[in-house]
Amino acid sequence: MAPAEILNGKEISAQIRARLKNQVTQLKEEVPGFIPGLAILQIGNRDDSNLYIKVKLKAAEEIGIKATHIKLPRTTTESEVIKYITSLNEDSTIHGFLVQLPFDSENSINTEDVINAIAPEKDVDGLTSISAGKLARGDLNDCFIPCTPKGCLELIKETDDKTNGRKVVGDVAYDEAKERASFITPVPGGVGPMTVAMLMQSTVESAKRFLEKFKPGKWMIEYNNLNLKTPVPSDIDISRSCKLKPIGKLAREIGLLSEEVELYGETKAKVLLSALERLRHRPDGKYVVVTGITPTPLGEGKSTTTIGLVQALGAHLYQNVFACVRQPSQGPTFGIKGGAAGGGYSQVIPMEEFNLHLTGDIHAITAANNLVAAAIDARIFHELTQTDKALFNRLVPSVNGVRKFSDIQIRRLKRLGIEKTDPTTLTDEEINRFARLDIDPETITWQRVLDTNDRFLRKITIGQAPTEKGHTRTAQFDISVASEIMAVLALTTSLEDMRERLGKMVVASSKKGEPVSAEDLGVSGALTVLMKDAIKPNLMQTLEGTPVFVHAGPFANIAHGNSSILADRIALKLVGPEGFVVTEAGFGADIGMEKFFNIKCRYSGLRPHVVVLVATVRALKMHGGGPTVTAGLPLPKAYIEENLELVEKGFSNLKKQIENARMFGIPVVVAVNAFKTDTEAELDLISRLSREHGAFDAVKCTHWAEGGKGALALAQAVQRAAQAPSSFQLLYDLKLPVEDKIRIIAQKIYGADDIELLPEAQHKAEVYTKQGFGNLPICMAKTHLSLSHNPEQKGVPTGFVLPIRDIRASVGAGFLYPLVGTMSTMPGLPTRPCFYDIDLDPETEQVNGLF
Amino acid sequence: MAPAEILNGKEISAQIRARLKNQVTQLKEEVPGFIPGLAILQIGNRDDSNLYIKVKLKAAEEIGIKATHIKLPRTTTESEVIKYITSLNEDSTIHGFLVQLPFDSENSINTEDVINAIAPEKDVDGLTSISAGKLARGDLNDCFIPCTPKGCLELIKETDDKTNGRKVVGDVAYDEAKERASFITPVPGGVGPMTVAMLMQSTVESAKRFLEKFKPGKWMIEYNNLNLKTPVPSDIDISRSCKLKPIGKLAREIGLLSEEVELYGETKAKVLLSALERLRHRPDGKYVVVTGITPTPLGEGKSTTTIGLVQALGAHLYQNVFACVRQPSQGPTFGIKGGAAGGGYSQVIPMEEFNLHLTGDIHAITAANNLVAAAIDARIFHELTQTDKALFNRLVPSVNGVRKFSDIQIRRLKRLGIEKTDPTTLTDEEINRFARLDIDPETITWQRVLDTNDRFLRKITIGQAPTEKGHTRTAQFDISVASEIMAVLALTTSLEDMRERLGKMVVASSKKGEPVSAEDLGVSGALTVLMKDAIKPNLMQTLEGTPVFVHAGPFANIAHGNSSILADRIALKLVGPEGFVVTEAGFGADIGMEKFFNIKCRYSGLRPHVVVLVATVRALKMHGGGPTVTAGLPLPKAYIEENLELVEKGFSNLKKQIENARMFGIPVVVAVNAFKTDTEAELDLISRLSREHGAFDAVKCTHWAEGGKGALALAQAVQRAAQAPSSFQLLYDLKLPVEDKIRIIAQKIYGADDIELLPEAQHKAEVYTKQGFGNLPICMAKTHLSLSHNPEQKGVPTGFVLPIRDIRASVGAGFLYPLVGTMSTMPGLPTRPCFYDIDLDPETEQVNGLF
Repeated sequence: MAPAEILNGKEISAQIRARLKNQVTQLKEEVPGFIPGLAILQIGNRDDSNLYIKVKLKAAEEIGIKATHIKLPRTTTESEVIKYITSLNEDSTIHGFLVQLPFDSENSINTEDVINAIAPEKDVDGLTSISAGKLARGDLNDCFIPCTPKGCLELIKETDDKTNGRKVVGDVAYDEAKERASFITPVPGGVGPMTVAMLMQSTVESAKRFLEKFKPGKWMIEYNNLNLKTPVPSDIDISRSCKLKPIGKLAREIGLLSEEVELYGETKAKVLLSALERLRHRPDGKYVVVTGITPTPLGEGKSTTTIGLVQALGAHLYQNVFACVRQPSQGPTFGIKGGAAGGGYSQVIPMEEFNLHLTGDIHAITAANNLVAAAIDARIFHELTQTDKALFNRLVPSVNGVRKFSDIQIRRLKRLGIEKTDPTTLTDEEINRFARLDIDPETITWQRVLDTNDRFLRKITIGQAPTEKGHTRTAQFDISVASEIMAVLALTTSLEDMRERLGKMVVASSKKGEPVSAEDLGVSGALTVLMKDAIKPNLMQTLEGTPVFVHAGPFANIAHGNSSILADRIALKLVGPEGFVVTEAGFGADIGMEKFFNIKCRYSGLRPHVVVLVATVRALKMHGGGPTVTAGLPLPKAYIEENLELVEKGFSNLKKQIENARMFGIPVVVAVNAFKTDTEAELDLISRLSREHGAFDAVKCTHWAEGGKGALALAQAVQRAAQAPSSFQLLYDLKLPVEDKIRIIAQKIYGADDIELLPEAQHKAEVYTKQGFGNLPICMAKTHLSLSHNPEQKGVPTGFVLPIRDIRASVGAGFLYPLVGTMSTMPGLPTRPCFYDIDLDPETEQVNGLF
Repeated sequence: MAPAEILNGKEISAQIRARLKNQVTQLKEEVPGFIPGLAILQIGNRDDSNLYIKVKLKAAEEIGIKATHIKLPRTTTESEVIKYITSLNEDSTIHGFLVQLPFDSENSINTEDVINAIAPEKDVDGLTSISAGKLARGDLNDCFIPCTPKGCLELIKETDDKTNGRKVVGDVAYDEAKERASFITPVPGGVGPMTVAMLMQSTVESAKRFLEKFKPGKWMIEYNNLNLKTPVPSDIDISRSCKLKPIGKLAREIGLLSEEVELYGETKAKVLLSALERLRHRPDGKYVVVTGITPTPLGEGKSTTTIGLVQALGAHLYQNVFACVRQPSQGPTFGIKGGAAGGGYSQVIPMEEFNLHLTGDIHAITAANNLVAAAIDARIFHELTQTDKALFNRLVPSVNGVRKFSDIQIRRLKRLGIEKTDPTTLTDEEINRFARLDIDPETITWQRVLDTNDRFLRKITIGQAPTEKGHTRTAQFDISVASEIMAVLALTTSLEDMRERLGKMVVASSKKGEPVSAEDLGVSGALTVLMKDAIKPNLMQTLEGTPVFVHAGPFANIAHGNSSILADRIALKLVGPEGFVVTEAGFGADIGMEKFFNIKCRYSGLRPHVVVLVATVRALKMHGGGPTVTAGLPLPKAYIEENLELVEKGFSNLKKQIENARMFGIPVVVAVNAFKTDTEAELDLISRLSREHGAFDAVKCTHWAEGGKGALALAQAVQRAAQAPSSFQLLYDLKLPVEDKIRIIAQKIYGADDIELLPEAQHKAEVYTKQGFGNLPICMAKTHLSLSHNPEQKGVPTGFVLPIRDIRASVGAGFLYPLVGTMSTMPGLPTRPCFYDIDLDPETEQVNGLF
């Protein structure tokens, strides 16, 4: 036996570090953008720890590992430490981390609990019980050995290799190494060069294991296999029969950190805007908008197609994909049947949560909207019943002998050009201007809202109690989703932006004709507080287990009818550059899609890649002149028997909507949503005509009956279209006069000969231009049932002049809305509302009778 | 060396089982009610597994272990299995469990992930990596060794003992045992008697370890140490500076299973009613109600005392304790300052969540209430504009050629005495009775609600749009918490009971004088669906980390002003027989406490143990004739300098309220909530007088400035009072005539000479008695600012006759409410509402300016 050799840890560790550096360089070449990540979580500030940490950080830097040092005070509690550990466990840029606890923590920290909170796959220190268990069982492939013993073993191995075949008895050499090579372990558990090298080696090893499992940018997602039944059961039965993934699991699967997710039970969660901040450097995914032909009472299935498409792209083609849809108004849920969660085997689930309160966003809008309304009338009342002086003294009261303006009041003074901050120095004239908003009740455009179909509130007289001293006026309630605050929520891009938009909302004019805003009322901060949770998009899932954002649902006629910019943005980051976000635009392409481009994309700056245009055989037959349909009566024959002539005539509407989409420079995929009575010849005809008239592709879909499987061809067409060249362009320049912008939309999109501004509209165009709102985009309030203003005119009406009755402004949301005819903003209940069928089973707690 | 002996596993295992049986008997004697629990979670249905499980179940039964066998189908997914494991991990009646996975699972179940989901302390099979790690490291005291090797080791040990000192070399004997004693391990990993015995031994061992750590019925809770500052910072600053425990952690600490908790972010959670079902056999804790003297503008601090008291009982006296408080209306939050989350160092946190949307319960009430309102007016409108025939055809439409009554319609037919289920068989007269509710618009008592202070909605005219064809009527909006649905939520005892109460709500009378209910409108099922989440109490925490239920907040004048029965019930089960539940009753003892006893306790059947009566030096001075106080002006001297005479005179009110509480047979502890300007002599005087006049005890409290520490004496007094004898009795019998019940309250509680029913009240008493509602309890709608009906009369007014202006009915909630004077049900906004100060910091996302 040859004599035992002194094992040179310093030299060997340097060799190891050099080798690791090469490995890391190679990893980075193989996976561009990838960096192995190490974190050191230090609690307290021990001098010895500091030294060791410095050495580790330096070694990491040399090798090319990104090392992060998190320092927490000695006073940190166990829960807080565990919160940080959880966050590191979930951070996919960190592949290993250590926790250094203080000897003298102020709070009793249970070391074992803390250490065992480390995810074993990131436990590069090998300290968790699981690592120990795996080591004991010999599962060395997916555990880590503590760095100091590992260093010793490695030293022996290296020496062994060097001495070329000479056998060294393990434990003898180990003992000797311990004695002689004192620089390896200067103190028990201390930091020698080998320990540091081993830590680096484990981190690189962990990063490699990570890359094996996770294809960067590809979600590890558990899909749900559908158990398709014929005939297709009711929506609620399908929704209920499906296995729901805990929403927290889905959030992890798509790369959200738990600190970015607020669970609302097991089926819904809010996603924080901090996710957007974290992912801001990641490139966006492909952006797909689903729209339709001009709607008919027969339904086209845009929502169902949106969900079917994401189920196909996700659960069948294994792409990262998000659906972004609108939250439906709760009022109509109890009036006339018709869900918004999709249908059949293409649904957002659980559909009862989707269709009812969800996480309370619409309720927050109702509260915020009505606070503004109450503030308007209360302010008018207080101004009418008090002198300037009394008003001023109440608005700026003396509190413990001190009078001070609040921040919002100082901002109002600035807008009035009064550069003073001391209330006692205002002149009488300044007091008058500051204290009186002098609202002209005739000009109030702000209405109260309720999320209830309550027709008796369409026109009311308020203020009739004796306490209001005769100051009555005529007013109205709208359905909550018609509130401008809903449009603000949909169009806002950040919390700060929302604060600003809420403040800018114009509620009336003063008697002098100046706009009066929510900021003037002093209420904009409170509105922001009421909306602070609503701004976070709601995460749900499809029947096949793919993610969905449900966020905002502005009216599609008086507002722009699209889900939120923020949900789309976060989704585009989460899916990553190879993924897809499918968002839905309300009504037909002439309304929802036009507003999607000219308003939503204009504000978001996002560039769409594909338009999916949904059509059905039945609806095209109606556009081709098919008979009218009456609810309750059987469908006329034309709709259930083959009739190629009607289909071909009705194709004119689809053709025009394809042209409308192409006008924005985006490829169009037509989705023909098949019903069981449609014939192959009818379906083929639509596809052929669509392709002949400018569609990138046109495919038949059966996702209602088959889920994602039924939308596979559509999904593949969308994938191809997303690769096709496109040249996105908006339809009009904001600087054009209001009338010109309206004319461009009417002529190009609706096919009108011209427009006619009636006197009220003419007047408003002038007022808004004068008030400085002339540069806003246009949000047409036109019937969705025809390309023209006459809902009876199907197909492609021609030779009409579009009358503009009035123009209103949603200054906070950021658009002018010309009224083409009368828009109902408060639905009613029919004689037999569908609430007759809705009930809760007290045993199972299941909702029955919902759709 | 003596020859190796055959180890008789059968015999030895029988001895072990006998020994375990003795141990379990002893455990049960030591801790009455305690039973060691073993669970076997079996997925799939393997024949061999079934056999082994049977043997194990039998052994457990013999020994006295409660064994549960959970069988899941082979199709169970990994997530579902893990959900069951989590539930077993959390179930404190289970001390060990095994998981038997199928060989042929239909879904890919990762065995390692599933096994490692087992909590190591319950891993009696010793299969988790943590158990292996601990075993490898020699931490044998808190891990388990797999049962078969453990059996072999035990066999050797037993044999060794028997052979009296003879040394047996472990691994040799082990090998021999393996070979010879084939009945111990008939197949690898199989079940021999020793394996079974070892499983039992591990379970008993685990149960013993459980008892060492957890004193049965005592929560293992992490309290939060307050860092008290002088002067006391603002409420929001204190709330914000405090470390919040993740609410899920608090839920686990107090013994809730994760399946019983729905998280709403990190600070709020809903608790499912299934917890009540699970704990139904556990005895209730002590039930404490906090009430006060007759309120004054100076405030008494009931909420603050409630929170201070639980902080003292929990974080300082280590008792299981729950506070149950009302959810405040959001409207006033933006009107006039005044939170409901307590104050100073005795608060529910985070206070901004508490004061704003919370989890949306009030929003759900608004939605449900207004659906009823819309249904009433729409129904009247449809009845006025249609013939019987048309109405009936629409109410019972032909769907695909079939006409059918819905369930709710069949119930209406039954109430009408029409025993038919086929719509075609109804006579014209029956069609008329069924289809027409024939509501008399003059009798409508159901109002619309909003959670906004909107004075202009106090009296309105609705239905003025042309679409309503001139059918206008006068109506009003109340604040949402005044809705009868809020009172229903507060008084309901289960989902089924809520469904029934919502249906029974009377909204108007028919022209014939019959009551028309929500059930008649067909809307009660939909209401239940809208309220299905609101019925679950909301869990939050105090500044010192103790649990709080925030649930329901009915108006304290037109309704009963107490938080929910369900929250109290769940809390009483969770704290267990040695614990305390402190609930708060609105206004003074003459109102909130009287209703707490006569209405809430009557419906819940719960018996209270202690009344805490809150008083302040200042308020008693006002009752003693101190000067009036004007907001904004400095407090008069009388209130900030010692004045024993005023205190002694004002004590009359406290004395009367002590008597009121004693009338119900419950001991009273007076809490004198001290302000810094109060003198010791003043405070002592109140305490002395209180004890002299029937209080069980009276103590000074400083919890606003010091948190729980400042309420220690109060907490100790409450502990003693809870042990004192009491004889709870209600004040009146429900069968008495309405007038007599009102008279009893007026004379005994208010000190009135008599009552006078004005004509409208007389009439209503007759109507309600005739309609069958005469047996309901009475909920007085009287000013809270005086014991009499005149808010100016402080102290103890005498010689007055209480006028009853009108009587209304909340039939669903279950009470009649006589109106003494006019009650405002819709607050207004002042000239300078506090929304001027409220804003959100877009950087930190913190709410500023809230109180």
